[in-house]
Amino acid sequence: MREIIIAIIRGKMLNLSYTILVLFPVIAVALRVSMNGLTLQSRRSHTMSMMTMSAATIGPRKKVVVLGGDGFCGWPTSLHLSEQDHDVIIVDNLSRRKIDIELGCDSLTPIASIEDRCQVWRQISGKRLRFRYLDLQHDYAELLQFLKDEKPDAVVHFAEQRAAPYSMKDDRRKRYTIDNNLSGTHNLLCAIVESQLDIHVVHLGTMGVYGYGTSGGEIPEGYLDVILPGGRSSKILHPANPGSVYHLTKCLDALVFQFYNKNDGVRVTDLHQGIVWGTNTLETIRDERLINRFDYDGDYGTVLNRFLMQAALNIPLTVYGTGGQTRAFIHISDTARCISLAINNPPKAGDKVEIFNQIAETLRVRDLANLINDKTGCGIRNLENPRKEDAENDLEVSNQKFCNLGLSPVTVEAGLLDEVVNIAGKYQQRCDRSKVLPNSFWNKARADAAATDKAR
Amino acid sequence: MREIIIAIIRGKMLNLSYTILVLFPVIAVALRVSMNGLTLQSRRSHTMSMMTMSAATIGPRKKVVVLGGDGFCGWPTSLHLSEQDHDVIIVDNLSRRKIDIELGCDSLTPIASIEDRCQVWRQISGKRLRFRYLDLQHDYAELLQFLKDEKPDAVVHFAEQRAAPYSMKDDRRKRYTIDNNLSGTHNLLCAIVESQLDIHVVHLGTMGVYGYGTSGGEIPEGYLDVILPGGRSSKILHPANPGSVYHLTKCLDALVFQFYNKNDGVRVTDLHQGIVWGTNTLETIRDERLINRFDYDGDYGTVLNRFLMQAALNIPLTVYGTGGQTRAFIHISDTARCISLAINNPPKAGDKVEIFNQIAETLRVRDLANLINDKTGCGIRNLENPRKEDAENDLEVSNQKFCNLGLSPVTVEAGLLDEVVNIAGKYQQRCDRSKVLPNSFWNKARADAAATDKAR
Repeated sequence: MREIIIAIIRGKMLNLSYTILVLFPVIAVALRVSMNGLTLQSRRSHTMSMMTMSAATIGPRKKVVVLGGDGFCGWPTSLHLSEQDHDVIIVDNLSRRKIDIELGCDSLTPIASIEDRCQVWRQISGKRLRFRYLDLQHDYAELLQFLKDEKPDAVVHFAEQRAAPYSMKDDRRKRYTIDNNLSGTHNLLCAIVESQLDIHVVHLGTMGVYGYGTSGGEIPEGYLDVILPGGRSSKILHPANPGSVYHLTKCLDALVFQFYNKNDGVRVTDLHQGIVWGTNTLETIRDERLINRFDYDGDYGTVLNRFLMQAALNIPLTVYGTGGQTRAFIHISDTARCISLAINNPPKAGDKVEIFNQIAETLRVRDLANLINDKTGCGIRNLENPRKEDAENDLEVSNQKFCNLGLSPVTVEAGLLDEVVNIAGKYQQRCDRSKVLPNSFWNKARADAAATDKAR
Repeated sequence: MREIIIAIIRGKMLNLSYTILVLFPVIAVALRVSMNGLTLQSRRSHTMSMMTMSAATIGPRKKVVVLGGDGFCGWPTSLHLSEQDHDVIIVDNLSRRKIDIELGCDSLTPIASIEDRCQVWRQISGKRLRFRYLDLQHDYAELLQFLKDEKPDAVVHFAEQRAAPYSMKDDRRKRYTIDNNLSGTHNLLCAIVESQLDIHVVHLGTMGVYGYGTSGGEIPEGYLDVILPGGRSSKILHPANPGSVYHLTKCLDALVFQFYNKNDGVRVTDLHQGIVWGTNTLETIRDERLINRFDYDGDYGTVLNRFLMQAALNIPLTVYGTGGQTRAFIHISDTARCISLAINNPPKAGDKVEIFNQIAETLRVRDLANLINDKTGCGIRNLENPRKEDAENDLEVSNQKFCNLGLSPVTVEAGLLDEVVNIAGKYQQRCDRSKVLPNSFWNKARADAAATDKAR
């Protein structure tokens, strides 16, 4: 109902097809109740959560460029922003699809081409969604001209290599991650300054910039209150403690934002996101050709999605080390919602870089594995940890700012089985089992340990 | 005498030509006493200071690669290390000379080609000094093979675009500075890990990474003691507060070092250097073909060298803003000595990144201008500040670590007039006066202010 009210507020025509689209997930739930009794409760709460947020995200219509809008987070976010009536332009160099080719992997879900995706969305939603092929690292002149031509209100920046294991695979990939991510981010800031436009940058960062256990308690949102020598209080950018080259690039980005904010007054919102899980959102489930990508491979599959895939295939969940790592998680549909909130609540001129922790909850990896194992009985297999990280850590994170803006996030417990049945289960025949195990190692010691483990 | 004792300690043949070279500066002073009575005292203390350090820098002979060894700091350092009997290989892409061409500028001093420089040094010192043309940003494969072939004990990393004004000139130069500096540094670390060699990295950073007034007192050497929320004490990497894209790259480098040190145990010494002034060292004055470069232009000329040039030409010293900026300074000969100390005192395996503040003293810019004006009467002209920075700041910096290793640095007061007479004066006919004024502006507001100032 709130979706409908919003549509009225915005003066849109309330037609039948729109009503059907809005109600689609509810209808879908009703139709599939008999399919799997277990899924009913989680699906219902999941859907309700998706709907309760909408009122808080209302903002004026904006022109929004989504850099990396063809990717795992970028695509559902682009649709969500379009659905919210923003004028969305996707910019992408399709690097994620190219890396699939390079690694011999593929999304578990069959994803349509970006051209088809945009066309289908137009057919289904009636909203224009444009696409521009552009490489942020290499096409600076085109980027600058594009900004001058389009004059966007906001740019959402997802256009970075985003897998920690890929970033640690070898020197080629370490260098690619650094060069691609940092040059891309810097080119964007540089072009914004050069364009003399007042464009709000919304950047996808990671909780991993903080490291674990260095805050002195709950991890605050970006800035840390400390007492300096001599007793003076100060609020500093939270010290960086990245655990991979990928995470390092997000720490580097943070310094670039601080500088361009200080020197040129660029308005930036940096979102320190937890590990994203899930696949679909209210928008991507409207048509199979809109489906989001689902990565389950050792490089790009985030821990929970890998577990879900393994559960669907009924093979043991691969836990790295003791599984004592505590991490922050967020569902993909909340990613899209948070971006929307960030766009609708930009920093004012002169404000320092706004930083939000974009997470729903924290969970220990072995608890996550046990949760899935309890429900599926697929078993658990502990592997030598390919990563150099603490075996066990606690994690307490503030996500007060998004909650204050009305976010009521989906939790793993509530949304989990949905994914198992509908994605991992449905497309399991597309899975290449040889790709699930880790094949990137943080350093030589970790590679050696894994080799010994395998030989055992 | 200590130089001679060191030579004996190292088992070198003590021959006549060596003795003459060592004593050359002393002889030169004696010969030139009558030339300018004013210079006698400063020159003597300068020379003595150069000599008192030597005993502390004795270390085992090492193979040392100097990246950027053709540049303003790199060249005298390479000679100093060679003189100290290290096996030195200069690696450079000659970018500094190319930028001169790009800007239509040239070193005030006539510098020989790198090939001639190396050959002359061999003739004069009897020591081999090799040169390899290589671009750190673009020639990764060659860099890796070079490291594998040469197996250096240490790499000194000067190979970065090092002028703040140039880095702020326009989007092309901002991007070049970021891409060149960060990719270069990362390629180096990446190649060291890939080579599986235990190479000590000595990096030239800048005092500018700290910003001004954010430490709560004296700026410590790299790490800051803070009290975290909850009352726990912690030693954190000093928060970054860069004042230009150039300074930003040094802050980015610092995070790269922290990561590769933590993940792969790379041993790194990062030197946070003050503003370098002066031209020659004990080694570069041995033959005019060994002379170091001297930049006086608005982009590459550091503040004190610009003032010296202006004094020699008897034109007013151009002070930006009120001249209330307090900065840290170091003489070029101390730069070379500090690098030598850093090479001879590497971090141990497992140590965190070692950080030294490489400075002699702090001075307020207007005091510096007054000092020179008092002695030369050339006058002072206050310009609109092209930089976005605090008009006035205090600065207190610890340089205890180098002092503990025996550094007794040259001060401006002691070494100043030497430079005016011998460099700026001698080569003043080579000066292009049109290049002295600032022509890079930190942002649009600063450019506008400068234009208004000029129109007045």
